[in-house]
Amino acid sequence: MTIDLNISIRERAAAARSAQRRLGSAGGEARSEVLRHLERLLGERESELIAANQHDLDAAKGTDLAEPLMKRLALTAEKLETLREGVRQLIDLPDPIGRPLVRREIADGLVLEQVQAPLGVLLIIFESRPDAVIQIGSLALRAGDAVLMKGGSEAINSNRALTDVLREAVAAAGLDPEVVQNIEGREAVGELLDLDDLIDLVIPRGSNELVTSIKLRSRIPVLGHADGICHVFVDAAADRQMAIDITIDSKTEYPAVCNAAETVLIHRDFPHAGAVIEALLDRDVEVRGDDSTLSLDSRVIAADEDDWGTEYGNFTISARIVDSLDDAIEHIHAHGSAHTEAIVTDDEPTARRFLEEVDAASVFWNASTRFADGFRYGLGAEVGIATGRIHARGPVGVEGLLTTRWLAVGKGHLVDDFSSGKRAYTHRDLPIAE
Amino acid sequence: MTIDLNISIRERAAAARSAQRRLGSAGGEARSEVLRHLERLLGERESELIAANQHDLDAAKGTDLAEPLMKRLALTAEKLETLREGVRQLIDLPDPIGRPLVRREIADGLVLEQVQAPLGVLLIIFESRPDAVIQIGSLALRAGDAVLMKGGSEAINSNRALTDVLREAVAAAGLDPEVVQNIEGREAVGELLDLDDLIDLVIPRGSNELVTSIKLRSRIPVLGHADGICHVFVDAAADRQMAIDITIDSKTEYPAVCNAAETVLIHRDFPHAGAVIEALLDRDVEVRGDDSTLSLDSRVIAADEDDWGTEYGNFTISARIVDSLDDAIEHIHAHGSAHTEAIVTDDEPTARRFLEEVDAASVFWNASTRFADGFRYGLGAEVGIATGRIHARGPVGVEGLLTTRWLAVGKGHLVDDFSSGKRAYTHRDLPIAE
Repeated sequence: MTIDLNISIRERAAAARSAQRRLGSAGGEARSEVLRHLERLLGERESELIAANQHDLDAAKGTDLAEPLMKRLALTAEKLETLREGVRQLIDLPDPIGRPLVRREIADGLVLEQVQAPLGVLLIIFESRPDAVIQIGSLALRAGDAVLMKGGSEAINSNRALTDVLREAVAAAGLDPEVVQNIEGREAVGELLDLDDLIDLVIPRGSNELVTSIKLRSRIPVLGHADGICHVFVDAAADRQMAIDITIDSKTEYPAVCNAAETVLIHRDFPHAGAVIEALLDRDVEVRGDDSTLSLDSRVIAADEDDWGTEYGNFTISARIVDSLDDAIEHIHAHGSAHTEAIVTDDEPTARRFLEEVDAASVFWNASTRFADGFRYGLGAEVGIATGRIHARGPVGVEGLLTTRWLAVGKGHLVDDFSSGKRAYTHRDLPIAE
Repeated sequence: MTIDLNISIRERAAAARSAQRRLGSAGGEARSEVLRHLERLLGERESELIAANQHDLDAAKGTDLAEPLMKRLALTAEKLETLREGVRQLIDLPDPIGRPLVRREIADGLVLEQVQAPLGVLLIIFESRPDAVIQIGSLALRAGDAVLMKGGSEAINSNRALTDVLREAVAAAGLDPEVVQNIEGREAVGELLDLDDLIDLVIPRGSNELVTSIKLRSRIPVLGHADGICHVFVDAAADRQMAIDITIDSKTEYPAVCNAAETVLIHRDFPHAGAVIEALLDRDVEVRGDDSTLSLDSRVIAADEDDWGTEYGNFTISARIVDSLDDAIEHIHAHGSAHTEAIVTDDEPTARRFLEEVDAASVFWNASTRFADGFRYGLGAEVGIATGRIHARGPVGVEGLLTTRWLAVGKGHLVDDFSSGKRAYTHRDLPIAE
């Protein structure tokens, strides 16, 4: 029984790999054709998709799924139209596959190119929002990748229906639908995580725990973020109103997301620290402060050491008064998660040092931490936000789903002729034809 | 005792992280200064370095270290001069840190840049060749990275002396020498592999077993190659002499390295299959062939299924007659390691299909597989060859030791103004100032 299951999951991943190679070498026009069919089918299948989603919504009503999660689970005509619009944008994008990044004459008659290529087979694990099936699936198809998607069990009917639409679009373009597969059940995910010869990248979108547990368990590279502990540093030379506005926006605009601020650091010489803390408290933000912050307002609660490393994800913020820019940077490096860090100041040299020295995926001067997002960065759809340092960092768009290949064309070139001194390398960069 | 040791290794890695942040933000001129001191010290310390190496050579004489390994272990005045030349080339390279890759107006007054940044702290594990200490160390310093280096125990005195020179060069430039550390002992490596909060990338240079065991053991991302099973495909339309020459060069020019060919695939309609096989046999290459190859020459030995997936690393090659380009590609995908694949043909459409469809880090038309190498690609020094698909693929130079950061400069921009419709995104790419 277990053995059969193993074979079947391995066979599915192998079918994805094989189908991916065909998709990857089918040409940009074939991939655009897939996306055109997808855009059409999302329109034609609207009522079936909404009906499938209704089953999930009905099932969820019987459980204690919180109201915001119910909203995320719902697939409305409006959401489907937004998804179609996203697909239309992808159709118009220049196809990234084969795009040369480097072109170099290695020796007379021997030309080397580094070109963009599909990453391969992706395993995406996500939670309740079924829209992600289309967003991720369409991005992966544009990049020539295969994608195995494991969504939340509360969206099982929606995920099946949406995956079927993706597969139908692939088949309509004459390609193998195995490039898109819906994965169900934890056992299947566990088995897939063992297939490091067939799966190239795992992207877990969801809780901190989910990401960490997958990193612990699999040898396959993982693109994900483990924490979003972002800081706003209000410098001595900050504008009073801007300090208040950016702190409030960073904390309260959408506190549940990873780019929301969890700590505000205020320079001891900033004369309006009390006004920043008061503005937070007046918006019902719980402020947990160090001794200096406690003295600013009686509503501030004493922070303990754990507060500096906590991702609250709600209307709570920790606050600390620091003596200098160096102290602020040291606090950020000691407690931050290298996600997004912002400084508010009117002093350019201080801002430049902050931008230069803070080691994080995104570093902002006089802007809210909430801007750290693929759509806001102009990357089109977002695969996720990576807080690791390899492959992709920060908000990740289609570039994160690509790799490169080196192609060389010679005339019978042999290394022995160069080792023996008969021929010499030229190493001359050539213009890249766009 | 174990606890003390743990603290000490963690403290060393933490010191490397902290020193790296200073190196990374010290500016390109400071990093060039380090390299200038290094170049000078390699000259000044020549006799001490050679004396330290002599201790290792003397110790090795008492063991059964093979002659080629003895040659790799020896540090000669000539090798030191080559290392100095490599350092001089790095001094002249434009500093990569802070180089903008993307520059974009997100909204009126809010400008985003994606810039190159140091990757962070590297752990490099390598075997007997002590030159690697300087090659890797200087590349890492150019990239603003810290580097913990664990060399082979047979080169322990050489590694210590070379690491000391690197540290002295860093200190002479007024920076913290903890960016370069010599690591000794397997226990230390084991403990370092657990520090995924302090170490960003592990680069194991050495045997297949070494790379695989590290991937199995650590959650830190690994850049390495697991196998080099490269193929030469001789198409029906190949030139007779070119087919022989490229096959011979790919197999025999240096069979111990990963970019040497392990299998030759010959199209059934190529009229000179016998000549290719004969040329290999005449150069004392053992040929293990399928049934069709067996009939070409009585010296061919029957291959078994394992031969198609074996990295011989010596004067042995497997040979198979295939019916078509598709069969060749299928064989390569089934048995290759996605390292380097070559086709020999005079037919351009066939070559184009091979270049397009073969899924490997390097794919060549009418050139020897042996060209897959960082120096030959013009990348300067080579960190290693990556057969994975993420972060870096194929020969990896300084680019593989870098990551990116996103920097944004605003005027008090708040996400709430965009969510509420008060302001709009512009997403306009700006020219990149070089």
